Amino acid sequence: MSKTNTGNFFEDFKVGQVLTHATPRTLNDGDRALYQALFGSRFSLQSSDEVARAAGYPQSPVDDLLAFHVVFGKTVPDVSLNAVANLGYADCRFLKPVYPGDTLSTVSKVIGLKENSDGATGVVYVRSIGRNQRSEIVLEYVRWVMVRKRDKASPAPVTDVPELPKAVSVEFLEAPQGTNFAGFDLAASGSAHLWDDYAVGEKVDHVDGVTIEEAEHMMATRLYQNTAKVHFNQFTEGQGRFGRRLIYGGHVISLARSLSFNGLGNAQLIAAVNGGRHVAPCFAGDTIFAWSEVIDRAEVKGRRDIGALRLRTIATKNLPCESFPGAVDKGYADGVILDLDYWVLMPRR
Amino acid sequence: MSKTNTGNFFEDFKVGQVLTHATPRTLNDGDRALYQALFGSRFSLQSSDEVARAAGYPQSPVDDLLAFHVVFGKTVPDVSLNAVANLGYADCRFLKPVYPGDTLSTVSKVIGLKENSDGATGVVYVRSIGRNQRSEIVLEYVRWVMVRKRDKASPAPVTDVPELPKAVSVEFLEAPQGTNFAGFDLAASGSAHLWDDYAVGEKVDHVDGVTIEEAEHMMATRLYQNTAKVHFNQFTEGQGRFGRRLIYGGHVISLARSLSFNGLGNAQLIAAVNGGRHVAPCFAGDTIFAWSEVIDRAEVKGRRDIGALRLRTIATKNLPCESFPGAVDKGYADGVILDLDYWVLMPRR
Amino acid sequence: MSKTNTGNFFEDFKVGQVLTHATPRTLNDGDRALYQALFGSRFSLQSSDEVARAAGYPQSPVDDLLAFHVVFGKTVPDVSLNAVANLGYADCRFLKPVYPGDTLSTVSKVIGLKENSDGATGVVYVRSIGRNQRSEIVLEYVRWVMVRKRDKASPAPVTDVPELPKAVSVEFLEAPQGTNFAGFDLAASGSAHLWDDYAVGEKVDHVDGVTIEEAEHMMATRLYQNTAKVHFNQFTEGQGRFGRRLIYGGHVISLARSLSFNGLGNAQLIAAVNGGRHVAPCFAGDTIFAWSEVIDRAEVKGRRDIGALRLRTIATKNLPCESFPGAVDKGYADGVILDLDYWVLMPRR
Repeated sequence: MSKTNTGNFFEDFKVGQVLTHATPRTLNDGDRALYQALFGSRFSLQSSDEVARAAGYPQSPVDDLLAFHVVFGKTVPDVSLNAVANLGYADCRFLKPVYPGDTLSTVSKVIGLKENSDGATGVVYVRSIGRNQRSEIVLEYVRWVMVRKRDKASPAPVTDVPELPKAVSVEFLEAPQGTNFAGFDLAASGSAHLWDDYAVGEKVDHVDGVTIEEAEHMMATRLYQNTAKVHFNQFTEGQGRFGRRLIYGGHVISLARSLSFNGLGNAQLIAAVNGGRHVAPCFAGDTIFAWSEVIDRAEVKGRRDIGALRLRTIATKNLPCESFPGAVDKGYADGVILDLDYWVLMPRR
Repeated sequence: MSKTNTGNFFEDFKVGQVLTHATPRTLNDGDRALYQALFGSRFSLQSSDEVARAAGYPQSPVDDLLAFHVVFGKTVPDVSLNAVANLGYADCRFLKPVYPGDTLSTVSKVIGLKENSDGATGVVYVRSIGRNQRSEIVLEYVRWVMVRKRDKASPAPVTDVPELPKAVSVEFLEAPQGTNFAGFDLAASGSAHLWDDYAVGEKVDHVDGVTIEEAEHMMATRLYQNTAKVHFNQFTEGQGRFGRRLIYGGHVISLARSLSFNGLGNAQLIAAVNGGRHVAPCFAGDTIFAWSEVIDRAEVKGRRDIGALRLRTIATKNLPCESFPGAVDKGYADGVILDLDYWVLMPRR
Repeated sequence: MSKTNTGNFFEDFKVGQVLTHATPRTLNDGDRALYQALFGSRFSLQSSDEVARAAGYPQSPVDDLLAFHVVFGKTVPDVSLNAVANLGYADCRFLKPVYPGDTLSTVSKVIGLKENSDGATGVVYVRSIGRNQRSEIVLEYVRWVMVRKRDKASPAPVTDVPELPKAVSVEFLEAPQGTNFAGFDLAASGSAHLWDDYAVGEKVDHVDGVTIEEAEHMMATRLYQNTAKVHFNQFTEGQGRFGRRLIYGGHVISLARSLSFNGLGNAQLIAAVNGGRHVAPCFAGDTIFAWSEVIDRAEVKGRRDIGALRLRTIATKNLPCESFPGAVDKGYADGVILDLDYWVLMPRR
């Protein structure tokens, strides 16, 4: 029997199956510095221990998306090594701050299966849960991927498609316990605009563009121990569909989030991701731009100091966003690469 | 009103105005390791906790220039987002060691204004002060930049050009309190040459050359949260003056300082920068060389263990320095990109 | 006298001579994160403090090869600055775990000399010893390099070639004191295969390929303070033998080791390196693959929880390894770049 991991094929998944993913990962100050160097984020809560302490944190938490990428990376060898496409995310909630020194691990449960009509592939739905060393859930999310069958002849499972929320419901939005953003330092954060100042329907062009290099996206993706082959192997990808290494979709999410500082400088935390689509592939040399629309606003239960904004952030490649390019007919304007729907938390007046 | 930062234009600055810059930044061990990976410095004081403790430090301080770049980076969104050119530095003094865990923030004061005769731009002089979390000044400096006017028709301010020292005066040079470099370990530092061994007029070719990659200078500049657009956006810069992303001038300063180890291996600290000019632009793919001339020597008040050397370090691109290329007529030899005048501290016999 | 280091030439070495290398280096969490980002290792012991504590470590040790590269890097300015070729390694043993906060320094002893018949070069054998801040030996190894003579006319030394073991003897293999791998967590490690499951002669293709970028290998090599000129200076190398910067051989070793996780996921530690040859040069843009053969198995004295496997790992460039390319006639198959012979430690049933 081969000692090499060949990954799971569609037939290997059963609804209810639990996958305990390998390689718990202790995050440290170096991960935080690398994330800074790769994405250039400027949200003050993740930049300054002093700002974090003033808001009731013991120290500055790591970027929510760094935690997400590490939790996600662990699922790749078991869930998506034989994936044809990453189809979507839903119901992603950030539940606990992560600090340097925390060790993250991930368990997934198969919550749905549906064979495709071609008989060669099927869709696998998993709920993945990231925990720290105290077994506290730090974040969880659902994703669905199209996975190859090992053998086209193997019988199709009973179709079982889970019902997923179109958005994380307002009542599930939480700000971290023990924190207090009243009197948040706006000179330190670099933005005078608070939750109260954003209106549903408001659009913000984040203006700046950032070009991605091969070394950058590979370093980021290895940092997360994400092993998806398409990101790393030019020899094979050079002969493939695009002739290029494909950039991890999460890299674009992180860049878009960092760019969003310009216009959303007090959006200190991500509370939830309602859904996300990688609309087109992204390659080294592409320059990423982004814009956001406020699509909902909500109070956070039990909190007067912080509120939630539901944002739709569109990222593009080689296309500035002053005219807000987005959905067109049944698809997207040329150049759009990401359509992300999420809840952020922002201090209130 | 737009929530996006459009930066200040020349009309927005007033002499005496105080700018409290955003995003305090906690430095950590990861920043130090990244700085090491990007510049390859080998000065023993910043490399080894043991060397630092033997010299009276609680632990190894971060590189002086890392602290400088972080303090500088904060000023960009307020001072130089609409800058046409960074014209010069003066009176930069390093006053306190910075350690992992320290949180740096920057305040600038406008100390001079002069509209240019074209009526479209003006020169803004600011003194920027970097402080740690205890409000101790860790470094300060003056720089002047040429900034666009928002409206050519707006009236010119009264011309007010500050008098700046041509060099930081010897009596202002200080070695960090509580340190003692007597008996400094020269096997550990890798150089047998001490302050006493350098003569005014002595020239040292630093021999080695280092090529810069796009990923490197962008990671460095994001690490400092420096948001100047020209460094990151190939889509826009590709259509601009150079057709390329421009490398942050401070990147060249850091490389020249690291290269200077070869010949100045005991120049453990930078005490002051008297002035600096970025003579020509630098792009990815360029190979940086450097040489230095000792232009002055001074004792440091109250210290017998350490002395100051005033250095002029010239950095070049794609031009080895064995013939000491530098100023020519009113300009510089082709290939010269940096002319830096600064004081270093070096242990004495 | 020049203050610049020109390195030692063949005439400068004497058998018995001790070289105390410069720049002790304190490793920290940032070094570990950068190593992760550059090589993407997934061995659970170096990834998770929790896994390490369960095995009796105070925290997760840094990767054995990171410690090796730092110890090795210090020898370059004194041993191999004028080297024509790095000829081989032998008798490399890893003796103590290295943790963030440890300061490494290196001393080498010249143990052999042999002038070449051309009269222009000679072979220098050194034993290099890396110690932590408590003067404990963390690792040691022998290497031999071909070094230029300063002056062809200088007399040849008495030929003195040390006898070196072809492999580190089984009785010298040690697992770190105080550790216990009984009941090692195989869900966390991601592999169900233990020492007992590998047979001599077994071959494993590590499947995956990773492309190297210029920024990556230069950042790695600077992280180790390795100053060998060929890795950094495109201006000079562009005019040289290959027209390219040459990648540090240790970079390929680290990539091969990380790739070996796929098939050897419980090979948590390197106990010894018996020998290694860099068979062909490696350049940015090359995609690295690897495969391993188990060439011996041994018990570790006093330990029932962990055993030793002697591996031969072959790394290739731009050549997948499913057909196990390796030695051919007196040479190697095209595409082979590394032939490494080493002992790993793996938990037992």
